[in-house]
Amino acid sequence: MKKQLDLTLYLVLDPLLCGGISGMVNTTKIAVKNGVTAIQLRSEKEMAGKDWYQAALALKEALSDTAIPLFINDHVDIALAVNADGVHIGQSDLPADITRQLIGKDKWLGFSVSNRQQLDTTPWQLVDYIGIGPIFPTTTKKDATAALGTEQLTKLVELKQRPAVAIGGIDENNVTNVIQTGIDGIAVVSAICGQKDIQQATLSLINKIKQAK
Amino acid sequence: MKKQLDLTLYLVLDPLLCGGISGMVNTTKIAVKNGVTAIQLRSEKEMAGKDWYQAALALKEALSDTAIPLFINDHVDIALAVNADGVHIGQSDLPADITRQLIGKDKWLGFSVSNRQQLDTTPWQLVDYIGIGPIFPTTTKKDATAALGTEQLTKLVELKQRPAVAIGGIDENNVTNVIQTGIDGIAVVSAICGQKDIQQATLSLINKIKQAK
Repeated sequence: MKKQLDLTLYLVLDPLLCGGISGMVNTTKIAVKNGVTAIQLRSEKEMAGKDWYQAALALKEALSDTAIPLFINDHVDIALAVNADGVHIGQSDLPADITRQLIGKDKWLGFSVSNRQQLDTTPWQLVDYIGIGPIFPTTTKKDATAALGTEQLTKLVELKQRPAVAIGGIDENNVTNVIQTGIDGIAVVSAICGQKDIQQATLSLINKIKQAK
Repeated sequence: MKKQLDLTLYLVLDPLLCGGISGMVNTTKIAVKNGVTAIQLRSEKEMAGKDWYQAALALKEALSDTAIPLFINDHVDIALAVNADGVHIGQSDLPADITRQLIGKDKWLGFSVSNRQQLDTTPWQLVDYIGIGPIFPTTTKKDATAALGTEQLTKLVELKQRPAVAIGGIDENNVTNVIQTGIDGIAVVSAICGQKDIQQATLSLINKIKQAK
């Protein structure tokens, strides 16, 4: 099915938090059925390349009959190997121009921005969307920088030249404030991944996003 | 310059042991001048993609006027990004068939084998050489399996269907015994990387290899 780039509710899968490959596939299926609009497989440095590949392949298959794209974090080779819909890179990953050369024009490229300086130096012509964060303190990303808060986020949203998704510590209690900054969508890890009721967690977030928009 | 696949003395660069990018480039230049026949940039899981890319680019440049190929361990995307001469993968990395698809026919593919069972299941038609090891206990590879010893190595050398390089704890004191198994060459990390006199360390190894052959 033709994929759509819709950042409304972007689920980042953490292999450890989501219960490995089967947990990630299961979470993905329920989440997508209930309103998640994009999926990313997050980098876990200790994970072997073979396991990365198997996980990406399983997720690609789980999303095959949907319009929901699969993004691979950092590992461009894995994205190419499974023909993922896009790659998401951070400031310390392979440079955006090199990544774009490797993935070609047909895959989407996401790029992480953590502050004003990084936003000002974003290669807008190379990227399809940006991720801004962390908005709030987060426990799922070990190397995250200081939390931006919604006031700072509002300023960055005004300056961005591509669609953007906010990430970092966003849950059903603060999602309304985040959406009201004008951002295109939110990305979550632990607000869905590892929750007891994936369906309920997803529905709760998507409803609050719709109300706030 | 046209590259040659010669496994006689294969230097594996460890970013930490070799003193970062400048240390690796310096070591490479001296080692190549004194007889090293192949270079590999080894995976360091904590290293960021950007740093990997910069290191690979610097090594590619350092080898540009030589016939010595540059192999990238594990990271196929980095190998593609710098147009390295080959990729070396282990049993836990991206599968050999997928790796071959990504790198095409023009890059060499090396594959690690640690025991008879792995040798028996090696996809010979996909790989250009194998690395067999560890031969002796090694301190530079954290996830290394049990040491094979030269007797076991001799059996594996008899069964191999491609050129092979022995790796793991090989130094000037045991290199003669290793070469006498009939192996095509040896790979070293700490016997060159981090040595006070890189030239002397390289010359000593290459002379012993020549004498033993």
